[in-house]
Amino acid sequence: MSAGVPREAERALAVLVSRGRTVAVAESLTGGLVTAALTAVPGASRAVRGAVTAYATDVKREVLGVDGGLLAARGAVDADVARGMARGVRALLAADWGLATTGVAGPDPQDGKPVGTVFVAAAGPDGTCAVRELALDGGREAIRTESVRAVLGLLLDELTGNAGAKDTEHKGGNGCLQP
Amino acid sequence: MSAGVPREAERALAVLVSRGRTVAVAESLTGGLVTAALTAVPGASRAVRGAVTAYATDVKREVLGVDGGLLAARGAVDADVARGMARGVRALLAADWGLATTGVAGPDPQDGKPVGTVFVAAAGPDGTCAVRELALDGGREAIRTESVRAVLGLLLDELTGNAGAKDTEHKGGNGCLQP
Repeated sequence: MSAGVPREAERALAVLVSRGRTVAVAESLTGGLVTAALTAVPGASRAVRGAVTAYATDVKREVLGVDGGLLAARGAVDADVARGMARGVRALLAADWGLATTGVAGPDPQDGKPVGTVFVAAAGPDGTCAVRELALDGGREAIRTESVRAVLGLLLDELTGNAGAKDTEHKGGNGCLQP
Repeated sequence: MSAGVPREAERALAVLVSRGRTVAVAESLTGGLVTAALTAVPGASRAVRGAVTAYATDVKREVLGVDGGLLAARGAVDADVARGMARGVRALLAADWGLATTGVAGPDPQDGKPVGTVFVAAAGPDGTCAVRELALDGGREAIRTESVRAVLGLLLDELTGNAGAKDTEHKGGNGCLQP
């Protein structure tokens, strides 16, 4: 169940703790793995507020507050849904940063999206909301594991100002607050 | 991050799916690992509604609805807190079964409880709410991993009627609903 903590988890936590910032996580296909990686680090409670795994689509809407029309129109595997999840968990758990994962771990395609399609998002305290689309190979476990690294890497890039313009979209307050 | 799914996760999911029942998880010290174990099984979405990792104590109160007086009086590592978390996540995520873990993974004691003190709970659709207290040895990872197996084992026992009177307490509707 646990075979080493991703380096990204330790690094992101160290930066958060050094700045007195907190994080919350909204997970779909990763189903708890992002949070498990963060909380594997001793002292994680100094920065980790908690998480919501919204495995069922209606939980994304009812608990995280993702727009129902958006979910109905595009399905759960979507960049704006990832943004809405990150924003929603940040508000629900009163954290400085909100992370989100949504995608298709397989074995079957979902909502017309092929296996390996994943969106990760990070909503920050300054109103920005970054998202990355991934196209991953491999089986269910590999796709989930790589998604964990991707969302923690996105957080690290956002924290350290390494976000690339090519694969990261920033949106100001309203863009993130009204997906 | 993932090195095999506990047998208890596969067995519990198989029983839930065969009965058309759903499950939700409230995690504290396990921080997502219970949910990660369940969602590692292909087809988990047929039974897994989602989860809340309530790492911060106030998240247990504000999101899961655990009684604030109880938390203030006894701290977060307590049998009735585990019951309240299981009950709370079952209601929040509209699941048939609610599971919960709370305990001390270390490295330091918490709320006067030694490292390795863990409570796991399972709230069922018939108003019962079972809880077990564990006294675990080993490091942080071992304590978290064993807690995952324990709560899934408790669920399996509740599903299959193997609950032992010695280490499992049942409470009727009000006992579970009013921790």
